[in-house]
Amino acid sequence: MQIAFVTYPGMTALDAIGPYEVLRALPDAEVRFVWHEIGPITTDSGVLMLGATHSFAETPAPDIVLVPGSGAATASTARDEGLLDWLRTVHATTSWTLSVCSGAVILAAAGLLEGKSATTHWRALDLLRPFGVRPQADARIVHEGKIVTAAGVSAGIDLGLFMAGEIAGRAYAEAIQLSLEYDPQPPFDSGHISKASLKTKAQAHKIMMRHGMFRPAEITAATRLAWDTALSRLSARVRE
Amino acid sequence: MQIAFVTYPGMTALDAIGPYEVLRALPDAEVRFVWHEIGPITTDSGVLMLGATHSFAETPAPDIVLVPGSGAATASTARDEGLLDWLRTVHATTSWTLSVCSGAVILAAAGLLEGKSATTHWRALDLLRPFGVRPQADARIVHEGKIVTAAGVSAGIDLGLFMAGEIAGRAYAEAIQLSLEYDPQPPFDSGHISKASLKTKAQAHKIMMRHGMFRPAEITAATRLAWDTALSRLSARVRE
Repeated sequence: MQIAFVTYPGMTALDAIGPYEVLRALPDAEVRFVWHEIGPITTDSGVLMLGATHSFAETPAPDIVLVPGSGAATASTARDEGLLDWLRTVHATTSWTLSVCSGAVILAAAGLLEGKSATTHWRALDLLRPFGVRPQADARIVHEGKIVTAAGVSAGIDLGLFMAGEIAGRAYAEAIQLSLEYDPQPPFDSGHISKASLKTKAQAHKIMMRHGMFRPAEITAATRLAWDTALSRLSARVRE
Repeated sequence: MQIAFVTYPGMTALDAIGPYEVLRALPDAEVRFVWHEIGPITTDSGVLMLGATHSFAETPAPDIVLVPGSGAATASTARDEGLLDWLRTVHATTSWTLSVCSGAVILAAAGLLEGKSATTHWRALDLLRPFGVRPQADARIVHEGKIVTAAGVSAGIDLGLFMAGEIAGRAYAEAIQLSLEYDPQPPFDSGHISKASLKTKAQAHKIMMRHGMFRPAEITAATRLAWDTALSRLSARVRE
């Protein structure tokens, strides 16, 4: 079972590393990190580097593909036609197509979520609408046929365990959970937008801006891209 | 505030990437990944590569140091005298010295946990005893002065948030929690040894063995190392 994690400059590492740590423990898992070319990519911190192990060309038919999210890089990555073409091609034969955080915006830009429900980071929910996607603000994971989208960053671990249960059965997934000692005990309880105070939300916005997560200029660009794409799709439909 | 994540061959990626994603959002955080030399290291999956950004020599006085865990690599890493010397040196001036998972065994091998309580991955708890450490089986995080140890793998996220609260205050830590959407909803509840069935435990052992996590041969080596170190320390004390 070949599992391909898309690995792109500016991505948020935990989006991929959470589900990777779960899914690599599946029976017969063959994990790879894919990008246009093999080599290191720098994540959104500008410091942490991850290695892409395989090119898209070398990975024509993964069983599972996962697209992680990012901050400022979501807009430019969602415009990468080579990536979007590859996603559309491999999605035709995947068993599962997955996203974490704003990775859903990239799946949406590839046209894979049109008419479907999906979730993403709470800050990116509105970016899904222009692609004809119904954002699910309250869902940790949204399961739509073989596409499963997860909420922000840390939700990828829950996605991984859900997928492990679907693929290898509950007993096996529970054993992976134990091996990762995934018995979360957050010292605070402000991890969902519905639980956070206005002050916490404002501070979170500041943090995300400072750390290259969802910079306003980039949200504008992403929103513009989303509209451009949705409009050109609409105009193509009109011309048909 | 300089935060150094020790990055070593065979480490478990999520042990470091979980707390990294939290701690890098602290005000004035300067994150680095340290090893003997700069360059890529391969994690315990044999596939995922992370980049060490700085050498130990370039990092003589981090404010925070974090040692992640690993599977089969714990024993050999806990014997790496260059690493242990560096840990002892920097610990003298850190504000916080942290470990996740079997990273505690490495702190113990450096002599930093002698006479203290600590936690680690449930499978590695017994490896702490020969170093004179009191294992805390039921704790997600153990706080002993400026040393804070976390349980297995995913516990690093809880450690990160706890530290964020200590360093930047609860309000700021809650905002980081929201930015990472850390509102865990595991689909199963077998993440702690006390909650898992015997069958789940047996399956988890099998998974960890297959994936290079705590191979029995390596546990034997680690245990032997632990005893060797404890005995040589004892004999040195006797000679004094």
